[in-house]
Amino acid sequence: MFTRSDLVVIGGSAVFIVLTGVLHYANTPQVLTFIVAAIAVALLASLVGRSVEQLGDRFGAGLTGVLQSALGNLPELFIGFFALQAGLVTVVQAALIGSILSNILLVLGLSFVVGGAKNGVQRFNSERARTTAVLMVLATGALVLPSLASYVHAPAGGHENQLSVIVSVILLAVFALSLPASIKRSSGAAAAVGAHEAVAGSAAAPAGGSSADVSPAAPAAGGHGGTRWPLWLAVTMLAVASLAAALVSDWFVSALQPAIDALHISPAFAGLVIVAIAGNAIENVVGVQLAYRNQADYALSVIINSPIQIALVLAPALVLLSFLTATTLTLVFAPMLVMAVAITVITVAFVVFDGESNWLEGASLIALYCIIAAVFWWG
Amino acid sequence: MFTRSDLVVIGGSAVFIVLTGVLHYANTPQVLTFIVAAIAVALLASLVGRSVEQLGDRFGAGLTGVLQSALGNLPELFIGFFALQAGLVTVVQAALIGSILSNILLVLGLSFVVGGAKNGVQRFNSERARTTAVLMVLATGALVLPSLASYVHAPAGGHENQLSVIVSVILLAVFALSLPASIKRSSGAAAAVGAHEAVAGSAAAPAGGSSADVSPAAPAAGGHGGTRWPLWLAVTMLAVASLAAALVSDWFVSALQPAIDALHISPAFAGLVIVAIAGNAIENVVGVQLAYRNQADYALSVIINSPIQIALVLAPALVLLSFLTATTLTLVFAPMLVMAVAITVITVAFVVFDGESNWLEGASLIALYCIIAAVFWWG
Amino acid sequence: MFTRSDLVVIGGSAVFIVLTGVLHYANTPQVLTFIVAAIAVALLASLVGRSVEQLGDRFGAGLTGVLQSALGNLPELFIGFFALQAGLVTVVQAALIGSILSNILLVLGLSFVVGGAKNGVQRFNSERARTTAVLMVLATGALVLPSLASYVHAPAGGHENQLSVIVSVILLAVFALSLPASIKRSSGAAAAVGAHEAVAGSAAAPAGGSSADVSPAAPAAGGHGGTRWPLWLAVTMLAVASLAAALVSDWFVSALQPAIDALHISPAFAGLVIVAIAGNAIENVVGVQLAYRNQADYALSVIINSPIQIALVLAPALVLLSFLTATTLTLVFAPMLVMAVAITVITVAFVVFDGESNWLEGASLIALYCIIAAVFWWG
Repeated sequence: MFTRSDLVVIGGSAVFIVLTGVLHYANTPQVLTFIVAAIAVALLASLVGRSVEQLGDRFGAGLTGVLQSALGNLPELFIGFFALQAGLVTVVQAALIGSILSNILLVLGLSFVVGGAKNGVQRFNSERARTTAVLMVLATGALVLPSLASYVHAPAGGHENQLSVIVSVILLAVFALSLPASIKRSSGAAAAVGAHEAVAGSAAAPAGGSSADVSPAAPAAGGHGGTRWPLWLAVTMLAVASLAAALVSDWFVSALQPAIDALHISPAFAGLVIVAIAGNAIENVVGVQLAYRNQADYALSVIINSPIQIALVLAPALVLLSFLTATTLTLVFAPMLVMAVAITVITVAFVVFDGESNWLEGASLIALYCIIAAVFWWG
Repeated sequence: MFTRSDLVVIGGSAVFIVLTGVLHYANTPQVLTFIVAAIAVALLASLVGRSVEQLGDRFGAGLTGVLQSALGNLPELFIGFFALQAGLVTVVQAALIGSILSNILLVLGLSFVVGGAKNGVQRFNSERARTTAVLMVLATGALVLPSLASYVHAPAGGHENQLSVIVSVILLAVFALSLPASIKRSSGAAAAVGAHEAVAGSAAAPAGGSSADVSPAAPAAGGHGGTRWPLWLAVTMLAVASLAAALVSDWFVSALQPAIDALHISPAFAGLVIVAIAGNAIENVVGVQLAYRNQADYALSVIINSPIQIALVLAPALVLLSFLTATTLTLVFAPMLVMAVAITVITVAFVVFDGESNWLEGASLIALYCIIAAVFWWG
Repeated sequence: MFTRSDLVVIGGSAVFIVLTGVLHYANTPQVLTFIVAAIAVALLASLVGRSVEQLGDRFGAGLTGVLQSALGNLPELFIGFFALQAGLVTVVQAALIGSILSNILLVLGLSFVVGGAKNGVQRFNSERARTTAVLMVLATGALVLPSLASYVHAPAGGHENQLSVIVSVILLAVFALSLPASIKRSSGAAAAVGAHEAVAGSAAAPAGGSSADVSPAAPAAGGHGGTRWPLWLAVTMLAVASLAAALVSDWFVSALQPAIDALHISPAFAGLVIVAIAGNAIENVVGVQLAYRNQADYALSVIINSPIQIALVLAPALVLLSFLTATTLTLVFAPMLVMAVAITVITVAFVVFDGESNWLEGASLIALYCIIAAVFWWG
């Protein structure tokens, strides 16, 4: 029923949740708690993703995409919410931008390096990849407008909260508008779905094929994949993983500030790199596996889909949720965050429009990520 | 002789010109005069466009493109000139950028939504669309350079007037250089021409076909189109519409400042949204009709051609004409205008290079427009 | 053995080296020395390029690309080094950005105008051109990050030197990573290689063909090309030209500051336009010749490859070499330089992705260059 990688993730999650809990209540050095909690968060993010896929399989590929957009970001949403309650606005803002950067620079770069080293030049000429990249440019363009208005447009500068709420509502509305089409258009949602299964299944699985095609055939064909989880199991796993993610996120956040102090790293660096990678990027490592199996189109869609979800769902949701907390989250990011995401998104859009990748392009993307991380090392 | 839509535009123009005049001299509340004048301006802009097309037909498709570039912007030129005389520099600058934004975000977005809802995913793979988009990027890049120099390059900051004149002359020179090619290359100009007729005519009209192919065949085929206007009629209509546009523009501008005060909207918002849509965007609604008829390539060319004309002809002409007025217009725009146009042009260039559109992309473009408009709501 | 153009370059170099030396030691007006030295530098840059090509032919096309990257920038490296010793940091930084701009705006624009006027619309649909453009975007994106951090990210602002060194090392590492692939992949390197020979040879030479295919066949076919230089000659020519370049660069730099004073031009303009064109752009005029011969793909690769070498090799090397001089070169450029290169690189990337060029696009690129140069005329 479970693939080997499922078992690793489930087992690992259990071990690291317990470890985090013990460390949390044992008053051990916060740095250790922080590191263990970060690993637990990353494992739970992966487990939530797998549960959503299995659940979605019951309802067709289209609904899976919707579920994944809504529930797949749960772990980051918990972290963001608890961090806002703890007043760590800088960390949350850096983590939102960092989630975009770590996915489309670090994970995409890794997938190009691994895919290129294994399979040579990889092509991804599908119109789907380009359309996704266009939506990424549109969504991040809208996301950074309140920041730009705050920097240079004095009259709007005094209305940051209102403008952030307006933009959040508009972004969520665009997301809501996309739902009916996602549910109907099964092939469309497939690329955002079933990623773990495609990897676990056969390398012969057609890139861009629907989830329903890929997963049932896989076990029979190769024996690598598990059978589909029964409905009760998928629901239970999702509920348990989500609850555990909420719990661990709380511990993770409570260890965050002490760990930042102990390690002498800046809050911006902690958010941009550590929180972002733990909460968001690790679960997309599946894209690297897909690239290794030469499913370049599929890998690209999984990875490029992530910044869209962050811009259209996660960031607006946290802005609105922040009214429930002591802190107010606006969409006015630090200027360097905006510049980093602008350079990154434009560059990656050209990379996608190029239609092919090689490992040197991948190495350059990773280099760009390292340079941006270095900038934030100092505050 | 006239199509039904011709008659609507002619009749509507006449009614609204008279109405505007009555309101103007009757000292009615300026807000009402302003609204009625705005509608009259939009109708006259459309009528000038139709006259130019008919006139151009006499001289071949190439010359029509030239005429349209030179005369099609007459209504906005009048508004800009009178507004400069009234000292409304902020409004004029916002209207120039707003004309670009309202065309390539609002009108293009609408055409994607309407075309996508009616016809599903639309493709526009022609090299022509991409080449036009490249010229759009080049022209707007040049247009914003004096602004950037003024913000961050202190030595040039004191020479805003000189730099604006230099850039204006260079932009007009590029436009002048493009004329011989436009006149010679008949198929090239066709996309910017005959748009109203293609809509009025048959849906079977070949996208990108020359104007000469489309218009005469249309009435016979479908009965929707009118016959070609006689030369005297086209010339007279152009002269009358232009004169009326000059007259109404004057009334429109004189109601502008009182209306801004009465409605408590900012001058930037008035220019960016209201003046821009009335003076420029409405006439391009023909692009939406073309998208509805699944002539996506044609629709795109009409719409994307507009920002090029604004950057290469309208803005430079107003800078040079401003020496005849009490006010000096420079190409140093407010920073937020520059950022808005930069994000928009880069995004739309990717949208065009994508080669296909769907209604979600259209909705996102409109969302981006709404966010930018919201920013300028406060000043 | 020598082609006619070889002889012109060799003879011209000799004459102008002697002239520069005489003027340098004769205490003539520095402006004259400066102009003559600039011509000598440009000729020597071309001669170094030709020697490297001939040398590289011995070792295969792959190694030639590597040699060209490493040695082809020698003249600029000498100028930069001597200028840093003379404390002319502003000139060096402007020259680095100016080398990028003059190649991808001025030289590329000229090649579009010449190619378009001679051959009509030119197509360059190769994946190679797009991949090169993507690397250009990535490399310049990384290059400008320290500047952006310095402007807006206060904590990193105090660490400009460290950040510049980190970025330089990363950029050189990406370049080093690209070497093995360049050496192995012979067809890949061909486009950056043998450019002078392809021009000297037959117009029928296949665009993008390997250097080995083009050069030996050329003399037999057309009689335009020279035979391959013997190894001793290529090595000697490279050594002599490099030594002479070092000598002349020293004279050129020592005349630079007095000439700037005498001509009342700003140091930024001198670096951006004069030093950049003399040191880097002239040698790429070969790209214009290729476009004239309708080898559009080949022309584009030669020209677009230049900014990559500047960003990945020349700029980082000068940063590290500056530790040997009295002055410290950082990668924190004046904001206007960064904005100019950002607009340029994004625009040119779209131009390349367009896949075709015409002379109007070329004229627009040249217009953009003129506007940027005009901005820097005032400081």
